[in-house]
Amino acid sequence: MTATLLERRDELVAVLGSARSSGGRVGLVPTMGALHGGHLSLVRRAAAEATTVAVTIYVNPLQFGKGEDQDLEHYPRDLDRDLEAASAAGADLVFAPPAAEMWPEPPLTRVHVAGLTDRWEGAARPGHFDGVATIVTKLLALAGPCLAYFGEKDFQQLAVVRRLVADLSLPVEVVACPVVRDPDGLALSSRNARLGAEERTVAPRLYAALLAGRRMVEDEEATDPGDVEAAMRAVLEAEARFEADYAAVVRPGDLSRPEAVAGTLRLLAAARLGGVRLIDNLPATSPHPEEA
Amino acid sequence: MTATLLERRDELVAVLGSARSSGGRVGLVPTMGALHGGHLSLVRRAAAEATTVAVTIYVNPLQFGKGEDQDLEHYPRDLDRDLEAASAAGADLVFAPPAAEMWPEPPLTRVHVAGLTDRWEGAARPGHFDGVATIVTKLLALAGPCLAYFGEKDFQQLAVVRRLVADLSLPVEVVACPVVRDPDGLALSSRNARLGAEERTVAPRLYAALLAGRRMVEDEEATDPGDVEAAMRAVLEAEARFEADYAAVVRPGDLSRPEAVAGTLRLLAAARLGGVRLIDNLPATSPHPEEA
Repeated sequence: MTATLLERRDELVAVLGSARSSGGRVGLVPTMGALHGGHLSLVRRAAAEATTVAVTIYVNPLQFGKGEDQDLEHYPRDLDRDLEAASAAGADLVFAPPAAEMWPEPPLTRVHVAGLTDRWEGAARPGHFDGVATIVTKLLALAGPCLAYFGEKDFQQLAVVRRLVADLSLPVEVVACPVVRDPDGLALSSRNARLGAEERTVAPRLYAALLAGRRMVEDEEATDPGDVEAAMRAVLEAEARFEADYAAVVRPGDLSRPEAVAGTLRLLAAARLGGVRLIDNLPATSPHPEEA
Repeated sequence: MTATLLERRDELVAVLGSARSSGGRVGLVPTMGALHGGHLSLVRRAAAEATTVAVTIYVNPLQFGKGEDQDLEHYPRDLDRDLEAASAAGADLVFAPPAAEMWPEPPLTRVHVAGLTDRWEGAARPGHFDGVATIVTKLLALAGPCLAYFGEKDFQQLAVVRRLVADLSLPVEVVACPVVRDPDGLALSSRNARLGAEERTVAPRLYAALLAGRRMVEDEEATDPGDVEAAMRAVLEAEARFEADYAAVVRPGDLSRPEAVAGTLRLLAAARLGGVRLIDNLPATSPHPEEA
């Protein structure tokens, strides 16, 4: 069955409110469209856990920075295809508002999550996470009490969303879903479509770098996070077409760098390949317990 | 009947959710306690329009700036008295959470409303409106769909709240309530209690200054807003104990200064009297239509 397409905010509010009134549980999957297997894994998970699944499709201009006009302009848009894919994965509703419906006048309000957003992607893309936090707060306000599904692929985004939901007491349970990968290990991303054929063949090296880092953490081959980071960067840069942005060992909660390799960690990496910026991450647990 | 006192966020969420489930309409009155006749007019209005009225009492540290520790520390707190007054005015619930309940860890998230918050009170109290916008967003998220009552006394705060509610699509209808004044014209404020006896007798001059400005606008005695502002300031500073901060003619929507005295305007004033900072405002409509 094809999901119902909604374009108006008041329709979304009414439909989800009435779903809850009759005892249903709302699952929300916020996206910018160009749905791939990663998004669809979120929709399937939502369909398994909620009674009414709404996928939102909105290419949010606030999260594109000054140098990213091209990205925004060329962001792939194919609503028919997205509607079909979301429906097949179990979506009941697709909310795809026109820009003027989302913000009848340019918004003055910004939601900012301090600290968490200064580093990694935040450092590379100033203002990006304010744009993300603002649109997510708005979409969650429109959806009302719900389960909200986010991919671990954008690990820092997930941390930002978790934090704003807690700080602002939004009536939302954030559900994190694992990264979905192509068979060769490349994490699914709408940006992958912009890779040339040769670039595509070397792209899985980003994942390989993270795997190498994880092996070092698990095998206690390093106590200094810097050594793990250097090793990940070396794997990446052995391929000349890769230009590493960061390769980092972080605490999973606030994405800060630990003093030592210990406890539950997250490995983050970002690199440019051709003109495309790729990011990926992996969990890694050291046998060394974290110091209290 | 005495209102039910709630201290936990999950209790508030549950009670208001269940009120809505059984067809009720929630009215929310956010306050910092020290309830006076102004607050109570909001509670009475809420009791007339909603079926369940919740008054929140929380002295929000985020809205006190670096130089305002004294204000925060000495903010009057008398929960028993507030509970009694709120109950008498028609409150069903009083939500008065301890600080650690409101934010189990220091919040990293801030809600910022650009432009609107740079001027007037925002200029005098840097960060103040970010603190207000953040706590209001959180309280509205906790309350869920509701009517939310704010006094026009804090006119800029009201504009900030209206704007964040619109920008973030919060499921809230903001209800603005007129300023309540003592018989001599002084706008009720918890700060009035800090005025000395002599200061109290001259305090109504702030209102007199606004009335003088309004008369000029209504009688078309000025076309330049600066002339109206100078006249208001002159009334104020004829009393040596007053130190004017600003006396302004503004557009009521975004609180910007108009080119000319025309259409529907708002007059704002802030001044120090003794150690106490007082603010007040009045609507004023010019017979001159606003230029399109």
